Amino acid sequence: MKQPRIYLDWNATTPLRHEARSAIVAALEVTGNPSSIHTEGRKARRLVTEARAAVAAALGADARDVIFTSGGTEANVTALAPGLRRGAGAAVERLMVSAIEHVSVLAGGLFPADRITRIRVRRDGVVDLDDLAERLNEGPPALVSLMVANNETGAIQPVAAAAELVHRAGGLLHADAIQAFGRIPLSLKELKADLVTVSGHKIGGPKGVGAVVTAGEVIWPRPLIAGGGQEQNRRAGTENVAGIAGFGAAVAAAMAAQEVEAKQLACLRDRLERGLRQYPRLEVFSGEVERLPNTSLIGVPGLRAETAVIAFDLAGVAVSSGSACSSGKVTRSHVLSAMGVPDNLAEGAIRFSLGWDITEADVDLALEAWRTVSGALAKE
Amino acid sequence: MKQPRIYLDWNATTPLRHEARSAIVAALEVTGNPSSIHTEGRKARRLVTEARAAVAAALGADARDVIFTSGGTEANVTALAPGLRRGAGAAVERLMVSAIEHVSVLAGGLFPADRITRIRVRRDGVVDLDDLAERLNEGPPALVSLMVANNETGAIQPVAAAAELVHRAGGLLHADAIQAFGRIPLSLKELKADLVTVSGHKIGGPKGVGAVVTAGEVIWPRPLIAGGGQEQNRRAGTENVAGIAGFGAAVAAAMAAQEVEAKQLACLRDRLERGLRQYPRLEVFSGEVERLPNTSLIGVPGLRAETAVIAFDLAGVAVSSGSACSSGKVTRSHVLSAMGVPDNLAEGAIRFSLGWDITEADVDLALEAWRTVSGALAKE
Repeated sequence: MKQPRIYLDWNATTPLRHEARSAIVAALEVTGNPSSIHTEGRKARRLVTEARAAVAAALGADARDVIFTSGGTEANVTALAPGLRRGAGAAVERLMVSAIEHVSVLAGGLFPADRITRIRVRRDGVVDLDDLAERLNEGPPALVSLMVANNETGAIQPVAAAAELVHRAGGLLHADAIQAFGRIPLSLKELKADLVTVSGHKIGGPKGVGAVVTAGEVIWPRPLIAGGGQEQNRRAGTENVAGIAGFGAAVAAAMAAQEVEAKQLACLRDRLERGLRQYPRLEVFSGEVERLPNTSLIGVPGLRAETAVIAFDLAGVAVSSGSACSSGKVTRSHVLSAMGVPDNLAEGAIRFSLGWDITEADVDLALEAWRTVSGALAKE
Repeated sequence: MKQPRIYLDWNATTPLRHEARSAIVAALEVTGNPSSIHTEGRKARRLVTEARAAVAAALGADARDVIFTSGGTEANVTALAPGLRRGAGAAVERLMVSAIEHVSVLAGGLFPADRITRIRVRRDGVVDLDDLAERLNEGPPALVSLMVANNETGAIQPVAAAAELVHRAGGLLHADAIQAFGRIPLSLKELKADLVTVSGHKIGGPKGVGAVVTAGEVIWPRPLIAGGGQEQNRRAGTENVAGIAGFGAAVAAAMAAQEVEAKQLACLRDRLERGLRQYPRLEVFSGEVERLPNTSLIGVPGLRAETAVIAFDLAGVAVSSGSACSSGKVTRSHVLSAMGVPDNLAEGAIRFSLGWDITEADVDLALEAWRTVSGALAKE
C-alpha cells in the first residue's frame, strides 16, 4: 500500500489551486507576446489584464498600480528602492526593516548597507513600535518595510499603526503581505501602506510570479529591471503570461474562499496544536498573539529540526524547519533569534503550515508522525 | 469556414513545443519548494537540476555556471553588472554595447549612463569591429555586450572576433544569444564569450524564463535580486519550477532538432523572400550578410508598418513591426536607424520570423496576404 503523503509546508509553497492550473494550461496555448499588436498579442495581453484586475481587486487597488514580478523576492527588492517617493513627497533616503523580515527584505534591495536600520521585535514576535517611533526621528525620510504576518510564526504585525508613525515622519511604508495575502482580509487602505508585495505560490498560484501593488502615485527613480516598456515602464521583460494568468486565477479563487478557508484552517491548526501539546515541553512560538490561521511554529528543547523534518518526511509528512528560502541549508532562524528565543529551543523549531486542501485526517496523520518523533526524543 | 491563422512572429515569441508543454503540466503537480529538504522539495529541485543540465549541455557549459532568471531581459540586466570580473581579472568599469542591441542591453543594466559607449554598425547591419577596437583603447577594462544575431534583421554578428579584441584589452564579453539560441550551433567556447544570455520563449519554451550562462569563474559584486541563497547565491527567489522545467525540455527538443529545423526554415524563408520580392521595390534588410535561418526584415517605400501588421492580421497572419518589446507602440526601429536606413523605408519595416511549426502552406498563405497588402500599396 502506498503511504499517504501529507503536505504541511504551505509557507514554503502550497499546492496549486484547480482554478490556477486550468488558467495556466489554457494560457500555454496563447502564443502571442502581450506587446504585439496582432490578434495573438492582444489575446495574451487580455490574460495579463484580467490577472491584473484580480490582484487589484483583492487589495482594493487600482489595476494601473499593479506591477507583476517574477515572485515575492523580486517584488520586495523592487519595493526597496532608494529615491522612491509618492507624488510630490520627499524621496526616501534610508530604509528601516524589522528584525524578523524575510531575508529578501533584510538584504535591503538597492539600499547600501549603511542606510539600513533594523527595528527590534518583542519576545512575542511582534515588532516594537516604540523602537520604530524613536528611530524614525533620527534622520531623513525613511522607507519602512514591515511584513503583515511573519512567515515563520504567523504573528500578525501592527502595520497600520506603524504606517501612521511613518507617514507622520514623512516616510513611506512597504507592507510585505506575501504570507498574509489570501489568509486574512487585506486592503491597501486598511494597511495604510504605500506599497504592498504579494506572491503567487503562497496562495495556490504558481511559483515564479508575484506583484508590487502601490497606493497610486508611487514613483521609482528607475526600474530594477529596465529596458522595455512593459508594466508601464516599471518592470521590463516579456511577461510570464501563463504564470500571471495562473496567479490571477489563484487570487480570485483564494479571495472567494478566504473567509471559509480561514475558519477551517484555524480549526485544523488548533486541533494540530492540541495534539502536539501532548508532548509536555512543547512551545508554540507567538502562540499568545494574533496569528495567521494556518501557521504553527513549535519548539521542543533538544529537538533537532533537520532530524525532525526528515523523520516527518519518512512518515509521509512534509513540514519545514524555519524558512526554506536558502538552498537546502538548515540554519538557526533569525526570527527566533530576534525574539530572544534560546539557541537550544530555536535549533529545533519546526513549522507546520496548512494549505487550502488540508483535511482533519491529514492533521491526525501528522499527529501520528509527531508521536513517533517525540517518542524517540523522549528516550534520548 | 474558420480562417486559418498563421503565426510568423516567432521573434516576439514562438509556439510552445509539445515537450515543453508536457514538462510544464507535469511540474505543476510538484508542490515542493526546491529549497525544502523533504521529498516534495527534492522532487522540485530535481526538475530544476535537469533543466540546468539541458541548458548547460546546449552551450557546452558547466551546469554550475547556469543562473536561471525570469527571462531574457532580466538575464541581460544581470549580465550588465558594473564590477563584474572573471577569476583574478580586473573588474569592469564601463560598458560598451553595439547600437543594434536589444533595448534591455541599450539600457545598460546597473551601469550609469555616462559609463556606456555605443559601438557603430555598418550599413549591412553588422557591428563595426574597427570602431570597437578603437574605443576599447580609450579607457579602463570594459564589459562589451554584443548580440549573436540581431532580433530584427537576423544578421549574425562577429562575436568571437570581438571577444578576441575585448580580451586583449583586458575586458569581458557578454553575448546576447537570445535570438540565435537553438537556431544556429552555439557554444561558449566558440563564441569565446564570458557570459551568454538565453530566453525560453524564443525557442519554444514558456515566456518568463531565461538564463545567464557563464564560462566559469565569473564573479558578481552582488546579485541583482538579492536575499535568498538560490542559484548559488547569484539570484534570489523561489524558482519558477514549472517554467524552468518547460525551458529545459524546450532546449533539449530544440537542440535535437536544430540542424533539421534550420535547413527547413532557411528553405521556407527563401521561398517567402522570393515571393515577397515579386513586389519590385522591396528590400530585405541585411539580406547580403549571414542571417538566422528564420528571419526576414523587409521594407518598402511608403508602406506603414502598423497598417501592414493590421492588414496581415485581418488576413490571419501574425507578423511584427520591428521589435515588439514595448507596450503596443509602433516606433521607428533603432536597429534600422543605426544601419542608416532612411526614415521612409524604416517606418514600414515588417518582420517575418518563422517558427519551428511552420509549413510551406503557411508561407504561401502569408504570400497571398502580402499580395493584398502590396496591391493596396501600389494603388496609393
